[in-house]
Amino acid sequence: MGALRLPSLTSLFTSPSSAAALHRRHLHLPLRRLYTANCSAQSSTAEKEISSTSELEGPPKLKLQQDKDRVITPRSQDFNSWYLDIIANAELADYGPVRGTMVIRPYGYAIWEAIQDYLNAKFKETGHSNMYFPQFIPYSFIEKEASHVEGFSPELALVTIGGGKELEEKLVVRPTSETIVNHMFTQWIHSYRDLPLMINQWANVTRWEMRTKPFVRTLEFLWQEGHTAHATPEEAEMEALQMIDVYTKFAYEQAAIPVIAGRKSKVETFAGASKTYTIEAMMGDRKALQAGTSHNLGQNFSRAFGTQFTDENGQREHVWQTSWAISTRFIGGIIMTHGDDTGLMLPPKLAPVQVIIVPIWKKADERTGVLNAASSVKEILQAAGIKVKIDDSEQRTPGWKFNFWEMKGVPLRIEIGPRDVSSSSVVVSRRDIPGKQGKVFGISMESSSLVPYVKDKLDEIQSSLLGTAMSFRDSNIMDVCSYAELKEAIAQGKWARGPWSASDSEELKVKEETGATIRCFPFEQPQGTKKCLMTGNPADEVAIFAKSY
Amino acid sequence: MGALRLPSLTSLFTSPSSAAALHRRHLHLPLRRLYTANCSAQSSTAEKEISSTSELEGPPKLKLQQDKDRVITPRSQDFNSWYLDIIANAELADYGPVRGTMVIRPYGYAIWEAIQDYLNAKFKETGHSNMYFPQFIPYSFIEKEASHVEGFSPELALVTIGGGKELEEKLVVRPTSETIVNHMFTQWIHSYRDLPLMINQWANVTRWEMRTKPFVRTLEFLWQEGHTAHATPEEAEMEALQMIDVYTKFAYEQAAIPVIAGRKSKVETFAGASKTYTIEAMMGDRKALQAGTSHNLGQNFSRAFGTQFTDENGQREHVWQTSWAISTRFIGGIIMTHGDDTGLMLPPKLAPVQVIIVPIWKKADERTGVLNAASSVKEILQAAGIKVKIDDSEQRTPGWKFNFWEMKGVPLRIEIGPRDVSSSSVVVSRRDIPGKQGKVFGISMESSSLVPYVKDKLDEIQSSLLGTAMSFRDSNIMDVCSYAELKEAIAQGKWARGPWSASDSEELKVKEETGATIRCFPFEQPQGTKKCLMTGNPADEVAIFAKSY
Repeated sequence: MGALRLPSLTSLFTSPSSAAALHRRHLHLPLRRLYTANCSAQSSTAEKEISSTSELEGPPKLKLQQDKDRVITPRSQDFNSWYLDIIANAELADYGPVRGTMVIRPYGYAIWEAIQDYLNAKFKETGHSNMYFPQFIPYSFIEKEASHVEGFSPELALVTIGGGKELEEKLVVRPTSETIVNHMFTQWIHSYRDLPLMINQWANVTRWEMRTKPFVRTLEFLWQEGHTAHATPEEAEMEALQMIDVYTKFAYEQAAIPVIAGRKSKVETFAGASKTYTIEAMMGDRKALQAGTSHNLGQNFSRAFGTQFTDENGQREHVWQTSWAISTRFIGGIIMTHGDDTGLMLPPKLAPVQVIIVPIWKKADERTGVLNAASSVKEILQAAGIKVKIDDSEQRTPGWKFNFWEMKGVPLRIEIGPRDVSSSSVVVSRRDIPGKQGKVFGISMESSSLVPYVKDKLDEIQSSLLGTAMSFRDSNIMDVCSYAELKEAIAQGKWARGPWSASDSEELKVKEETGATIRCFPFEQPQGTKKCLMTGNPADEVAIFAKSY
Repeated sequence: MGALRLPSLTSLFTSPSSAAALHRRHLHLPLRRLYTANCSAQSSTAEKEISSTSELEGPPKLKLQQDKDRVITPRSQDFNSWYLDIIANAELADYGPVRGTMVIRPYGYAIWEAIQDYLNAKFKETGHSNMYFPQFIPYSFIEKEASHVEGFSPELALVTIGGGKELEEKLVVRPTSETIVNHMFTQWIHSYRDLPLMINQWANVTRWEMRTKPFVRTLEFLWQEGHTAHATPEEAEMEALQMIDVYTKFAYEQAAIPVIAGRKSKVETFAGASKTYTIEAMMGDRKALQAGTSHNLGQNFSRAFGTQFTDENGQREHVWQTSWAISTRFIGGIIMTHGDDTGLMLPPKLAPVQVIIVPIWKKADERTGVLNAASSVKEILQAAGIKVKIDDSEQRTPGWKFNFWEMKGVPLRIEIGPRDVSSSSVVVSRRDIPGKQGKVFGISMESSSLVPYVKDKLDEIQSSLLGTAMSFRDSNIMDVCSYAELKEAIAQGKWARGPWSASDSEELKVKEETGATIRCFPFEQPQGTKKCLMTGNPADEVAIFAKSY
């Protein structure tokens, strides 16, 4: 069967001489456009100009139909081009007509649905109800919490005309909902009996970002935002910690991303929060991605909006609050954690297709037997709750299909040829182990052997992705004791971990001089006394510094 | 146990003398505000003025905490007040700070989630994939399809400022997505092999409505919008019909709403469609509610956006398209179809709580036994997949709880008192049959009897709600043969059904003179030759005329 296989995508890149030609041919121009810091709302003109310059730079779909053009920049060569190529080729997303916006295509959206299914169940288990707040917020609301307006006002999209008329007050298209949530909470909360109030919404949000990148930072994105109100600061703190813990488990167990959970520095805290907890993930280029946050808002918003309750002693008090969010950015994190030169590599638990079946035949009389066997294998796996698909199109060779589904990141491939039909067995290949090493022949088609075999392999892949990411992460964090060591680590593209008790201005100096920021003070801290890497003063905690998205 | 029961909510309304006092006291003022045709974007000032006029007109939650104030205007007395009272008292929704916007509260949102769960599965079964399009649409897109811009331009919300700067081109906050969908389809569709392309999105949409009403018509609402592209007009027509059929089955089988499915007249067709199919529901006040639509768009948008494909003969053709939607308006339809003077009445299949358990005890030594029995009954029902909740709060009497959960529309109530514990049985009361008639004593607590009993009763209630609504509908449709008869039927508040082949201008005359519009030409048509009720000319079809929301 190996003989049928076409040259793999990666082999196309092995000749350095062809790299420049390939570079011109590949598909990322439209997506690259998202990067421009052009402030105009819409770039359809620019788009037309670009597509008219060369026939080769048309839309992704067109390119996918010509085998020779389906190329992905090697990850090691240009991480950003590789990222954009994968998004275009695997049909995860496309750019919208308005600068910085993104269309999430079915394959990308299915990953989001898997994320939603898991988190939604966890939110309900931990006592939260879903609801929906309007996305239009009176401008005056945003101004009520001082640091909130400072943080968000440069990024707002404003509706000024409605139904053909200039509005009396501009409306903000929600960049986040703390203000409108508090406006409503103030009406619903009266006594301690109304607390805790714990809600969540799945929604779109808008932030007028100048430098955008699909999934990672877009003008509009999808997320969930949890909002809670409590009677005591202790309860709010427990809730904020509980939710960052839900996110951490999700990242490890579902996305196979070994995030580091911790607390943000004061400088990096959310605009309006008392404390921000975060999960930080290391991408394949060793930049950090803030993958989820949970904020202890203290009484900042309840004081700004007068959200009070009568406690058990009849006293009026302001509520203590939290908010927490994960967004479609997380999909970018999955791509950049697990992907390789061949394309996407999806953790089985979030993969829209866990198993792709490729039927293989040469002679017409082999066709029916092979296709029947493929269907029966599909039904067996489907009945066991496995997400499975057959690629039985006759316009493509098996080799093309192997490459295509590897590029789409499907964890397992099952090949069925005439000899497999005779022996009632299949060939199973792992996406995470390339070539013959990841291929096992002669797995029985019987449900009783095939189902446990496939489930075991999916579990193994899930663990193996986490293991690989964890080794990569750990080998790229350097413990540093001085600013010189920190600079050296960052210059090497690594994360620097070292004791920190210096000032905000010293933290900003590090950013200016190295491009790195404090990603977090991790929850897991080393034992023993520590001295601040910058000042030599005693330090309670180590911080992690890194460049980030 | 009856002795513990407080006066029901309805009994509060039986004395006409107290009606005026009650009217002043009841809770709908804030929601009523949604009705005002005030064009200003935000009415926080107005709101403050209203709440300062009387302590009694505060926010709903406050009112709910004082038993004497939890009143609902009788449906027969004032349908609109009744509707708004239910929404406030059952905590389905609240008004947002911006005029015409709505906050969907957890109990209302849970109904939406039940609608989503059912429809989402049906959409996938019928071959559609979910995805997500940006909500910001360049203004120029809206202008491309002539009748589309005419239909939507008065209702647009426009973003004119982003990131602190005036935008070069105004952005429309999506009122519907045909234009942006076609812009993207044009890039994805190349050959007949790319067809059919069948997608759906769950999203928020914005229409700058002047007269709003919670759920029924709000400035922002939630919906799903399906969009498909096909190679032939026949396929597009089949798809449009398939989806109105999915909606019809949903309405009958899940929502117990006996909608009438049919085709819209040309006058009432969606802006940009060739044909619009609709499901029309009769509300309790006998007004019609358009509860879902499916459009055959023909080539209108594909011509405007150049969405073409190469057919099997190598010819370039424009695709044939459909779009179809159901929104949170449907929740308004459920309320207005099944509710009664006591409050909401939810069809079991969409009820967030299907069974409420009310434990009843007087003496302290009865408490533990009763609560243990209640917990065990809850676990039994939950294990069987029934949505069940215990109301074990000690601040409320059982009678209060009976009224409260009846008002919330929960289909079945289980009462458990000390005598029931001794006899290992429970009392079961149906929401749809008031008083003793709907109450059955001595149902065994054993899982093997209780589970099938409860499931049977839920099924019976589901059928019974549909049956009641169907009788109501049928007794309020009058067959008419002349314009005089039509006017008489409409004057009586009924729907008029009669043969129609007159002109658009005659249709508009009916609207002007009677307030009724053609709701649809129903798919189910009487046999035999027909003469147009207006002109006496031959008519192929009967149409249904009614006043509508």
